[in-house]
Amino acid sequence: MNDCPDTTPEQLEQVLAAAAAAAPVLGSARPAERAAWIRATADALDAAADSLVPLAIEESALAEARLRGEVARSSGQLRLFADALEDGALLEPIIDTADPDATPIPRPDLRRVLVPLGPVLVFAASNFPFAFSVCGGDTASALAAGCPVVVKSHPGHPRLSDAVAEVMVTALRTAGAPDGTLAVVHGDRAGVDALGDPRVRASGFTGSVAGGLALHEIAVNRPDPIPFYGELGSLNPAFVLRGALEERRSGIASGFVASYTLGVGQFCTKPGLLVLPVGHGLEEEIVAAAEEVAPARMLNDRIHEGYTAGLAKLRERGSVEALVTGDESDRGASASLFKTTVPRLIEDAAVLLEECFGPTSILVEYADDDELHAAAAAFGGSLTATVHGADSDTDVAQRLLPLLQDRVGRVVWNGWPTGVAVSWAMQHGGPFPATVGSVHTSVGTTAARRFQRPVCYQDTPGDLLPEVLRDRNSLNVSRRVDGEITRSDIGS
Amino acid sequence: MNDCPDTTPEQLEQVLAAAAAAAPVLGSARPAERAAWIRATADALDAAADSLVPLAIEESALAEARLRGEVARSSGQLRLFADALEDGALLEPIIDTADPDATPIPRPDLRRVLVPLGPVLVFAASNFPFAFSVCGGDTASALAAGCPVVVKSHPGHPRLSDAVAEVMVTALRTAGAPDGTLAVVHGDRAGVDALGDPRVRASGFTGSVAGGLALHEIAVNRPDPIPFYGELGSLNPAFVLRGALEERRSGIASGFVASYTLGVGQFCTKPGLLVLPVGHGLEEEIVAAAEEVAPARMLNDRIHEGYTAGLAKLRERGSVEALVTGDESDRGASASLFKTTVPRLIEDAAVLLEECFGPTSILVEYADDDELHAAAAAFGGSLTATVHGADSDTDVAQRLLPLLQDRVGRVVWNGWPTGVAVSWAMQHGGPFPATVGSVHTSVGTTAARRFQRPVCYQDTPGDLLPEVLRDRNSLNVSRRVDGEITRSDIGS
Repeated sequence: MNDCPDTTPEQLEQVLAAAAAAAPVLGSARPAERAAWIRATADALDAAADSLVPLAIEESALAEARLRGEVARSSGQLRLFADALEDGALLEPIIDTADPDATPIPRPDLRRVLVPLGPVLVFAASNFPFAFSVCGGDTASALAAGCPVVVKSHPGHPRLSDAVAEVMVTALRTAGAPDGTLAVVHGDRAGVDALGDPRVRASGFTGSVAGGLALHEIAVNRPDPIPFYGELGSLNPAFVLRGALEERRSGIASGFVASYTLGVGQFCTKPGLLVLPVGHGLEEEIVAAAEEVAPARMLNDRIHEGYTAGLAKLRERGSVEALVTGDESDRGASASLFKTTVPRLIEDAAVLLEECFGPTSILVEYADDDELHAAAAAFGGSLTATVHGADSDTDVAQRLLPLLQDRVGRVVWNGWPTGVAVSWAMQHGGPFPATVGSVHTSVGTTAARRFQRPVCYQDTPGDLLPEVLRDRNSLNVSRRVDGEITRSDIGS
Repeated sequence: MNDCPDTTPEQLEQVLAAAAAAAPVLGSARPAERAAWIRATADALDAAADSLVPLAIEESALAEARLRGEVARSSGQLRLFADALEDGALLEPIIDTADPDATPIPRPDLRRVLVPLGPVLVFAASNFPFAFSVCGGDTASALAAGCPVVVKSHPGHPRLSDAVAEVMVTALRTAGAPDGTLAVVHGDRAGVDALGDPRVRASGFTGSVAGGLALHEIAVNRPDPIPFYGELGSLNPAFVLRGALEERRSGIASGFVASYTLGVGQFCTKPGLLVLPVGHGLEEEIVAAAEEVAPARMLNDRIHEGYTAGLAKLRERGSVEALVTGDESDRGASASLFKTTVPRLIEDAAVLLEECFGPTSILVEYADDDELHAAAAAFGGSLTATVHGADSDTDVAQRLLPLLQDRVGRVVWNGWPTGVAVSWAMQHGGPFPATVGSVHTSVGTTAARRFQRPVCYQDTPGDLLPEVLRDRNSLNVSRRVDGEITRSDIGS
């Protein structure tokens, strides 16, 4: 399937040497300068959409409208990171002025800023050929942090990866960014070799639990362990409370089917369970909607094989009943659907609470609130949990939400988890196995922190300080000074 | 040496069960309530200093004034974390209000806050029986984050560990904190077993490179990997520029000797190298000052053995010349000192750039600025680097500081690295091997982030949101709302 030859060890050496050489230049660039380089890649991506999207359709089998949305999402994401960089939010300046009267010892002048870790290795995902690939969130956040990026392409869309890289590299060069700021490599060998290379200082990954854990093991067992941020698998349970069911029955049925079959179910935020009260009466409508979903090709053979294997495992369980059988012929898939109860879900948790990546989900019926809460307490770490509720459900929800908060990174109320907005407040990550490294996010402006470390300057003269830490706040950024957030100059 | 029996597996089970039970109570407590519990431990520590300090002297052989300062530092640290918690800084609320016109898709209302990870296991250090032990920075930051803490005591001061825990546990209980908020366990077996237990969600460590890496390996290779924050070893080179030498010769000599011999050289921030221009003329004064330092007992046998082995290795190298021989009899140590040149330092880097924990250091002479910068580029990750400079050194310093920023977490100007202020801006951590996990700090208010993860609420009704995320900013905290930092209510 891979039309692009694997990167040779000699080529990889050139890529890593160039990234290492770019690191100090990129890291010491002024925020506005680095932001301009990033914006240049965003503009270039938008301008190249007409040539990139057809390539993406060919390699990923995804629909044009979805892919055009993904380009816009990716360029918007690059611009948001550029904004956050110029705002100063990504630098997190914190200043404590000297306090000769502090006890037990006088306090020196201390000024802290986040600096880039150095070259970052990004393992691209198959299911978002733009938004979680060469021009995706890991790349955007690492560039904003000031780190050169080496992307290990996903074999599902190698030619698109090269094409996107060419667009971005040209834009970066034209805008004045150093050579080596961005590169793409192909092949597992290149990815693994790069992950073990001392010049690579951190890595981001989006993909399967097995693949992510294998790479995690390499990263953390190096002689010099590096941070590895892996976004792995997620069940994304959705819970329907009684009040919501009374208010908006059919919206729930159609919304659920649209969400779990979106993009042929190939979303890490796909709702894998819908937990409903016994007697919900939605089954017929859900089944009808699922049967209407047109079959479509899946991303690639490996994903199709994984999906059919997962389905086969579910179909042989006595713990679930098939409501919609589905058709997985021809590397494609139509929607399938299963049904069970909370006690059977808990009894067969090892199989039923495992992610099955594709257009399938399980209706789970709860007899009472105890079963509802038992279902919420049964699943492990997940990216999201969704609740459909109404005012009359407040008491039940107040018990439910803390259980969900303990298990997920994002709680969705009266919506669906697919569709991850890129913004300041977004959290995309959750307790293991959703993520390795759940103290961070892979989407939203705080994602840059994964690739930064703090440096504190003690009693250092102004002309030797990074600009953002000087007395005069010439960049006009928000800084925490002596505990208070302010844009004022120091000593004014 | 250990007067306290090892924690049995049955006792450990009780400790972990209590910690797990305390986690949701501690995590859902209002910031002001949790802050009050933390302040109660600070007050209790101060009140108990007269009984704790003699125990600390007995077990650690450290001096009374130093230990009293450490108690004050520890209680002050607890209070700073309580303040930061009430300020809202530790919760990091970020709110994006809904934007139906956002492209490519409408943006929902998103509200993000940091929540506790769950029970934290702290491995205490030997060299700070208060400040990096039961009542130390890892404990303070984890409690402020809302995590129950289990401390694996250091065998160098087990009785003090029990006594401090009793003071803190009594204060917590009296103040109304849940049982299981804090506990101490003894023995390597208990520490290793706890580190592998699924109820433990993160771990902090301060100690040797070998010990830290062994525990790191356990934490990251669990079936569910957890974050392990290890503060390991550090060289802390200090650089003297020519202008500084002209201005303040003798201050440099006495300051250097005081810093590297402070607490019998048993500081992770001890300056292990002093890099000076050839012809500096300070040797005589430094040697005289070092020879005047009274010998003192080291913390324990293991540290004394490690120190004498490190010294023996240095003494047999042809690459250094001994200036002060030192005396390591009787579990004690007087100051020792070596001397070399930059070319010899680089040639024998594997030995000379390794931390030797105790009252020894190496004078390194540079012939010109190229050698100065070569020395700065030669060392690996370190907690600190120190520069002594004057106005006339600005050009040289402007080349030097970026090299140091790449290698350390704190740059000290015209001071000494020993003495780590506890404040908002402090950074205690640096690139490996100084730290495993250099994107974080173990001292300063941002240390709490190690034990928190973000959760985002999407379109969630106000009465189901954590208080700090509601429209009305009833806690009066700084929040980032639609990209801007403000204390205003939403929609006002």
